[in-house]
Amino acid sequence: MSVNRRGTLFVVSAPSGAGKTTLCRELRKRVPGLAYSVSVTTRAPRPGERNGVDFDFTDETRFRQMVEAGEFAEHAMVHGHHYGTRAATLERALAGGTDILLDIDTQGAARLKAHTPEAVLIFIVAPSMKELEQRLRERRSDGETEIERRLARAREEIPLWPRYDYLVVNRDVKEALDLLEAIVLAERARTRRLSLHFNDLEVPN
Amino acid sequence: MSVNRRGTLFVVSAPSGAGKTTLCRELRKRVPGLAYSVSVTTRAPRPGERNGVDFDFTDETRFRQMVEAGEFAEHAMVHGHHYGTRAATLERALAGGTDILLDIDTQGAARLKAHTPEAVLIFIVAPSMKELEQRLRERRSDGETEIERRLARAREEIPLWPRYDYLVVNRDVKEALDLLEAIVLAERARTRRLSLHFNDLEVPN
Repeated sequence: MSVNRRGTLFVVSAPSGAGKTTLCRELRKRVPGLAYSVSVTTRAPRPGERNGVDFDFTDETRFRQMVEAGEFAEHAMVHGHHYGTRAATLERALAGGTDILLDIDTQGAARLKAHTPEAVLIFIVAPSMKELEQRLRERRSDGETEIERRLARAREEIPLWPRYDYLVVNRDVKEALDLLEAIVLAERARTRRLSLHFNDLEVPN
Repeated sequence: MSVNRRGTLFVVSAPSGAGKTTLCRELRKRVPGLAYSVSVTTRAPRPGERNGVDFDFTDETRFRQMVEAGEFAEHAMVHGHHYGTRAATLERALAGGTDILLDIDTQGAARLKAHTPEAVLIFIVAPSMKELEQRLRERRSDGETEIERRLARAREEIPLWPRYDYLVVNRDVKEALDLLEAIVLAERARTRRLSLHFNDLEVPN
């Protein structure tokens, strides 16, 4: 049944501190067949991040060349760094029947939806700004200025949730993961996707 | 958050033998908040069925009066008996924030979608006609003529699956239940439903 099935592109966005990175990593462990699309970025690797696995790390000059060559399905500037998703990487995976889980910011998500309208957009939020602030402080990886910048950005991003298809309120990791898994399973069962490849069901024998 | 939330109407159809009755019963046990909408029918109660609980059993004359009075959101004739869903019962529950799981045939589902366009339609199929036939025979509740009639009807109904929002292939009860549960949870997280009542999320504090 999965022969010739086109993959589904799941796009997850969230303000910093909503728990997106953890949730996407755990979701991939739970749900088979959710591939990672490696983004291109100009930001420096964080400890433990591997080039070509976590990101394709590149410099400003090369990034601009790729933009000019129209290589990106979406690209955006976040906290002073460029991030981009190569259209060719994406299309190759989807055409081959692979579902992709993309973890990108609100600008990137909007551009990706314009480029790939069948993408499924999921927005993750912390249950409140107070909780979000607490989570950012508990990380201890950012200074006060950076925390304030992330909070200001969250206030700008949160009102964008109606642009997404699904809203996941991350009160509890287990509960949020259950919901993310449910969204992936349900989307895979949508007839508008199946109509492409379930023709054999029309007259089962 | 659930204050003033409008309920979602889930409509499940399936050819006889696909496992719909069992799946709907088990789904209600698993997922809280899926109310039952009692249908009106002219067919005779089966052993164990209670009037006003499983169905509102009525006669032809009264049923026709209700049709003429426009009381039904949908009504249909199946295997020689009338079935109908009262619009008032449905609207009262949805307006009160109750999600409803309706188990009706393909004619009823199509009429209900026309009456209530936001309804979520789910189609359940057995993995093959061979498997469907085997399940109908294992029931031992129907004679050969009735089995043949149900199989002929299944052949007519199965090609209607693209009219539904979701397709659930019932290979295994546990797997089909997991998927049904996922569909309900995912639909409850869709932003187009939430936009009606999650305005407080636009600027969380």
